[in-house]
Amino acid sequence: MELDFLRWLREHVPQSPHIALGIGDDAALLNQRTGKQTVVTTDMLMDGVDFIAAQGVSPKQLQDWAQSVGRKALAVNLSDLAAMGAKPVAAFVSLAVLSDGKPAETLEFTKRLMHGVQLLADEFDCAIAGGDTNSWLGPLVISITAIGEVDIGTGWLRSGARPGDAILVTGSFGGSLRFGRHYTFTPRVRDALQLRAIGAEIHAAIDVSDGLSLDLSRIAAASNCGACVHLAKIPIHADAIDRQRKLEDGGSSVLLDGPPPLEMALSDGEDFELILAVPPHEAERLLRDQPLDTRLTQIGWFTAEPGLTQQLPSGEVLPLQPKGYEH
Amino acid sequence: MELDFLRWLREHVPQSPHIALGIGDDAALLNQRTGKQTVVTTDMLMDGVDFIAAQGVSPKQLQDWAQSVGRKALAVNLSDLAAMGAKPVAAFVSLAVLSDGKPAETLEFTKRLMHGVQLLADEFDCAIAGGDTNSWLGPLVISITAIGEVDIGTGWLRSGARPGDAILVTGSFGGSLRFGRHYTFTPRVRDALQLRAIGAEIHAAIDVSDGLSLDLSRIAAASNCGACVHLAKIPIHADAIDRQRKLEDGGSSVLLDGPPPLEMALSDGEDFELILAVPPHEAERLLRDQPLDTRLTQIGWFTAEPGLTQQLPSGEVLPLQPKGYEH
Repeated sequence: MELDFLRWLREHVPQSPHIALGIGDDAALLNQRTGKQTVVTTDMLMDGVDFIAAQGVSPKQLQDWAQSVGRKALAVNLSDLAAMGAKPVAAFVSLAVLSDGKPAETLEFTKRLMHGVQLLADEFDCAIAGGDTNSWLGPLVISITAIGEVDIGTGWLRSGARPGDAILVTGSFGGSLRFGRHYTFTPRVRDALQLRAIGAEIHAAIDVSDGLSLDLSRIAAASNCGACVHLAKIPIHADAIDRQRKLEDGGSSVLLDGPPPLEMALSDGEDFELILAVPPHEAERLLRDQPLDTRLTQIGWFTAEPGLTQQLPSGEVLPLQPKGYEH
Repeated sequence: MELDFLRWLREHVPQSPHIALGIGDDAALLNQRTGKQTVVTTDMLMDGVDFIAAQGVSPKQLQDWAQSVGRKALAVNLSDLAAMGAKPVAAFVSLAVLSDGKPAETLEFTKRLMHGVQLLADEFDCAIAGGDTNSWLGPLVISITAIGEVDIGTGWLRSGARPGDAILVTGSFGGSLRFGRHYTFTPRVRDALQLRAIGAEIHAAIDVSDGLSLDLSRIAAASNCGACVHLAKIPIHADAIDRQRKLEDGGSSVLLDGPPPLEMALSDGEDFELILAVPPHEAERLLRDQPLDTRLTQIGWFTAEPGLTQQLPSGEVLPLQPKGYEH
């Protein structure tokens, strides 16, 4: 299976000027560029944790799912690169797929999974430059390491937010895992590179994987400051709002499950939007010009006092408990 | 568990001048150096495939085993870097460990595993710069991506062997998996860098993971040539020879299992020695001077005719079937 798969892969992987040597040797060779730093991130996704293989589905449905999983595995890595303000260069894909004595089906499953990786990689000009394909009797595991680059010293760290910085977010939040958006989200790579291109001053950034309030508390803590959120300003995703409408109309019971929309937005996680710490004058410009394809919204500001707080419409400020997926 | 582990890890990971930003942000930042290429390799190791968790052992034995597994997972990656003639820079470690409701034991297991990685990383001046720690209900999976560097255009590819080149190997072969050496082998990083340091002319290289004859057939095929092996010249590891002695003395039945020593050497795999394609004049110098800590041996030569052949002591040349671990 693995040899067939490697042959197929080599024929389907496009060339990249960054990659001096790709799939097939003991290692890959990547060109280095003067004035750049290499950005490296890695994420392992496991069946039963980051996705759940549907039981009793048709082979066709299983293969569609494989493609979604491959896409997601690269997308979470690209989201990390976006959160550093980095341009994607290459990805390395390691797999453990179930070998249940049906080599043709296993091969097709693996190809479809890789096809999902490849489609997204192409979209963001990221080469697939290596990996390690294995079969076993355990559940599906996919581990991707993505490599990007930034100009020296310009990576967006978590630790650069300053009291008074505006908290800007891309897009909207809530219901990603619940409504399947965690398979289909667009990592904010283009937005990050667009912010670079217009010379935006970004003090710090993080992507929201575990929950808006939890990841906000992390960027604040890493920056030795706090954050105050204006709850009414949080952009809630249509998924979570539609669910609310369905609730009012007496919609399906499946969609009625779970907390209210604002709580979904604050704690659901897997939104993979960016939280940015931006100095006030820059925030004003960005909010006015809206230079990205994705809407930018200010949801609060960083504070000198540590910890997370919420400002109510009345102006009253209360503590806010960070919530989300705790590993 | 994972937060405790991350805290422990950050305190135990040494700094490196190559790493501008290590564990704890969305990604790591590595410095690039003028005139260098980045070398990237990745290997995923899984319980039941690359190692087998002993059943019914004491917690202490289980943790010793975890350390061996961590060591092995980095060692196989460093072996790939050695096979490119690359200097290790950084490693990224992704884990899926069993969470069986005993968080203290899971934490200790994970720490010991990471300690195994760290000890070997320190030995080869390789920074642990990131990773992804997960727990689940499945078997142990560890996936490491190692990053190294070479001077531009000097990486030892598999494809550079020429007819007439000597086949040199480091060390000796056989019985690695059978006798546990696959946990304890030394990746040939120092030897590769020593060959660089003395300006040795190396046309091609590969590390022996799947079997001497199989990996030799791969380097030959990648170079569009063949290889002829002088069977009597193959250095057989003491493990495989001792077993033979034990057989003659009427030794234990466990050690009697398996093929004769030469066949172990040709096909067992996981020796993680290097096969080098070296032009004749350079081979003569290296064999005479023996400049490495590890012994270099010529076991044959690359041929214009494709395929693998064996030369018998009589001088007769016969086909040799490549054997080893086929994925």
